[in-house]
Amino acid sequence: MAKEKKLVESITSMSEDFAQWYTDVVLRAELVDYSGVKGCMIIRPDGYAIWENIQKELDARFKATGVENVYMPMLIPESLLQKEKDHVEGFAPEVAWVTQGGLETLQERLCIRPTSETLFCDFFSKIVQSYRDLPKVYNQWCSVMRWEKTTRPFLRSAEFLWQEGHTIHATAEEAIARTKQMLNVYADFCEEVLAIPVIKGQKTDKEKFAGAEATYTIEALMHDGKALQSGTSHYFGDGFAKAFDIQYSDKDNKLQYVHETSWGLSTRIIGAIIMVHGDDSGLVLPPRIAPTQVMVIPIQQRKEGVLEKAAELEAVLKAAGIRVKTDDTDKSPGWKFSEQEMRGIPLRVEIGPKDIEQNQAVIVRRDTREKTVVSLDEIAEKTKEILETMQADMLARAKAHVEENTYEAATYEEFKDIAANKPGFIKMMWCGDLECELKIKEDAGVTSRCMPFEQKIISDVCPVCGKPAKKMVYWGKAY
Amino acid sequence: MAKEKKLVESITSMSEDFAQWYTDVVLRAELVDYSGVKGCMIIRPDGYAIWENIQKELDARFKATGVENVYMPMLIPESLLQKEKDHVEGFAPEVAWVTQGGLETLQERLCIRPTSETLFCDFFSKIVQSYRDLPKVYNQWCSVMRWEKTTRPFLRSAEFLWQEGHTIHATAEEAIARTKQMLNVYADFCEEVLAIPVIKGQKTDKEKFAGAEATYTIEALMHDGKALQSGTSHYFGDGFAKAFDIQYSDKDNKLQYVHETSWGLSTRIIGAIIMVHGDDSGLVLPPRIAPTQVMVIPIQQRKEGVLEKAAELEAVLKAAGIRVKTDDTDKSPGWKFSEQEMRGIPLRVEIGPKDIEQNQAVIVRRDTREKTVVSLDEIAEKTKEILETMQADMLARAKAHVEENTYEAATYEEFKDIAANKPGFIKMMWCGDLECELKIKEDAGVTSRCMPFEQKIISDVCPVCGKPAKKMVYWGKAY
Repeated sequence: MAKEKKLVESITSMSEDFAQWYTDVVLRAELVDYSGVKGCMIIRPDGYAIWENIQKELDARFKATGVENVYMPMLIPESLLQKEKDHVEGFAPEVAWVTQGGLETLQERLCIRPTSETLFCDFFSKIVQSYRDLPKVYNQWCSVMRWEKTTRPFLRSAEFLWQEGHTIHATAEEAIARTKQMLNVYADFCEEVLAIPVIKGQKTDKEKFAGAEATYTIEALMHDGKALQSGTSHYFGDGFAKAFDIQYSDKDNKLQYVHETSWGLSTRIIGAIIMVHGDDSGLVLPPRIAPTQVMVIPIQQRKEGVLEKAAELEAVLKAAGIRVKTDDTDKSPGWKFSEQEMRGIPLRVEIGPKDIEQNQAVIVRRDTREKTVVSLDEIAEKTKEILETMQADMLARAKAHVEENTYEAATYEEFKDIAANKPGFIKMMWCGDLECELKIKEDAGVTSRCMPFEQKIISDVCPVCGKPAKKMVYWGKAY
Repeated sequence: MAKEKKLVESITSMSEDFAQWYTDVVLRAELVDYSGVKGCMIIRPDGYAIWENIQKELDARFKATGVENVYMPMLIPESLLQKEKDHVEGFAPEVAWVTQGGLETLQERLCIRPTSETLFCDFFSKIVQSYRDLPKVYNQWCSVMRWEKTTRPFLRSAEFLWQEGHTIHATAEEAIARTKQMLNVYADFCEEVLAIPVIKGQKTDKEKFAGAEATYTIEALMHDGKALQSGTSHYFGDGFAKAFDIQYSDKDNKLQYVHETSWGLSTRIIGAIIMVHGDDSGLVLPPRIAPTQVMVIPIQQRKEGVLEKAAELEAVLKAAGIRVKTDDTDKSPGWKFSEQEMRGIPLRVEIGPKDIEQNQAVIVRRDTREKTVVSLDEIAEKTKEILETMQADMLARAKAHVEENTYEAATYEEFKDIAANKPGFIKMMWCGDLECELKIKEDAGVTSRCMPFEQKIISDVCPVCGKPAKKMVYWGKAY
């Protein structure tokens, strides 16, 4: 009872307080819960099932490109973390340190991995001798820890789940190609499976990963107009190879350094799913990622034959490969509708005595609430069709949202005006100097999201300083 | 070159030094490597692929029984670990402690989970109110850490991967039934997929899990006659529920404590696969768990048409759902055979110019080296058939090994004689007293493996003390 009551209390509306709406949704849809360890979340069954689907989809895409999965230790000795100068500067301030093992104090501190470049490099240096050993295209699915001060479920937490790919190659060209290939895997996955359109581009030097030569990113736009960095792919050149002495003898028997990449996508992306597609009734899950795609809800279920017909319907949909459940609890249909909506289950199929009489059921879309009366003779095909349509519509809506909330600024005044009044992406030219980037953040409160691969010349000069423009940049507020 | 040389150096033979043979195999078959963190292993692609197959198989079996996956934090506050007295005594001496987060010293130490009963209990106490909320049948796939002094890859390492299931129920009966159900899932999985027969039974009080009322176990017998505890399932009664105050109101609105279970299986099982099936040429993988089931090896591959035919053959086998690869490197066939044997790939299919002429290929089983000449017209069916036969034969051989190495002792003299001279299981009656159990370990160097569900009366009294016998027990040396 207490639980049912909690569920239907209206959640905060998006327009009133987006941050509170987000918190309400992740908790009421039972995706996560807070734990007793500050900043560490508990991922509940409905949240974890989304992550399992993400893993399944992404892992298959990785393997199709030749990726092999491995598992590295979760602890990194301090001396290993320190081998690459930029990397340790970036991460050392935000790691958790193990100083005691069992009853003894350790001679050297070990940190819980915030990321595993150093472990992979150490391993690569042991196993690579010849050009025949290259490339190595490894990935691991694991949890990592970064000692964040302010945390929010999925978006920023001390511990989070992710995959981290680490590859080494004989040439810079091959490594760069791999870096971009994996960014494309992420982007395609987001669009095709999560119905989230993304901007692909390169981070500025200020925003790139600690130790990388270049960081590529996919940036998504949330419902509130803020950006979310949703996946990154880094090209390291031979910096780590030199720090860790990863050399191979080439065909002429000369020693060469390898060229390296890494790329990662985390449970943060679940935050993007929520903030791109959700509405004031709760979560809205794209059909392709939804753990449950259809909830069958019997109406007047105590009447003879209703539960039997609902079970039959469930069996038919299941046989057609649809992920379906039936809510045959003794709650009222209204309760069940609210629950299904809160949990973001894409479709509900209502079936009651009148429907049975007419050999039909009513399919209701979660996103538009559109109702379709469907003959039971063609329920499986129609359900599949509506799921596909819903998936496509969700992507189209999300794309339209990005377009509607992306602005161009030719002058700095215009830029500041947009930044102050219109949430979203702002495209503006940039001279490439850190000074202007910092000034923009100071003046307008936005940061560079990326230098998109799809460039467009808006002005010849950098509107901030008047020097020649080098790149068009997406700017915005970000999570 | 260096690598090839290493591979064909003969590995230590099993009969000469079983422990060294094991180490040689895990390293040369490239399942694991040592890392710079003492006791933490690196699981390499061929090792991790086995774990992925184990996960896939087990997870499907779990879900078929209603298990839901979740993810709990990897850190446990010291105060939480201390809530259940027996549990903390069992684990506190062997955990890794985080004492610093970022640049600050923590007010309370956090340990890296050695197991997660305390976290699950804390969570259950928050989310359970009514009998309607029960049961909760949760599981997580994760890594855990136990600060072991002496470690061996897969068998005993500081960090290892596993799944840990945690469930709560309204009644003791239901909880006990779940405990046994999951033990059966493990046993069936071992027999059907890994071709490893196991003894199912209950641990003595001395050997049970810290905090459990009863621990059930599956025990497998390795090639050297030592036992390996391969999976355990624990019934906790309401001990943890009382320590963590996990109560629900029943149908009469009375508060009741829940009854709890947990069960786990880890990467340790990969050690069992190696030690049950391996031989002096390396690993032998049961077909159902092998990441690569068939290696196609072209003979005289520079001759026209050979590589094309090999590729064609690979495509035919792949289309039939067989996990197949082709070794078309420029190594000699002999090298390739050795590699395929070292890696334990169940079948190799040899195809050369003469075979092509006669529209045939040669299938060679890894376990028996038996060769079968097969027409290319029926290569897919024959390959499947031989894989199935090999799987069945491996289980039969492993079963025969257990039978041949299981002894009965009616007197204590007989028992000590067997323990001193014959590796394997010894069945003997026991009075149930800790004193006799300790004396047996002291005298004969063996421990109680389990009180099997399948009991048999060998003698009326405990041969050690002469008191009435309560249980027949399997005794043995163990990993």
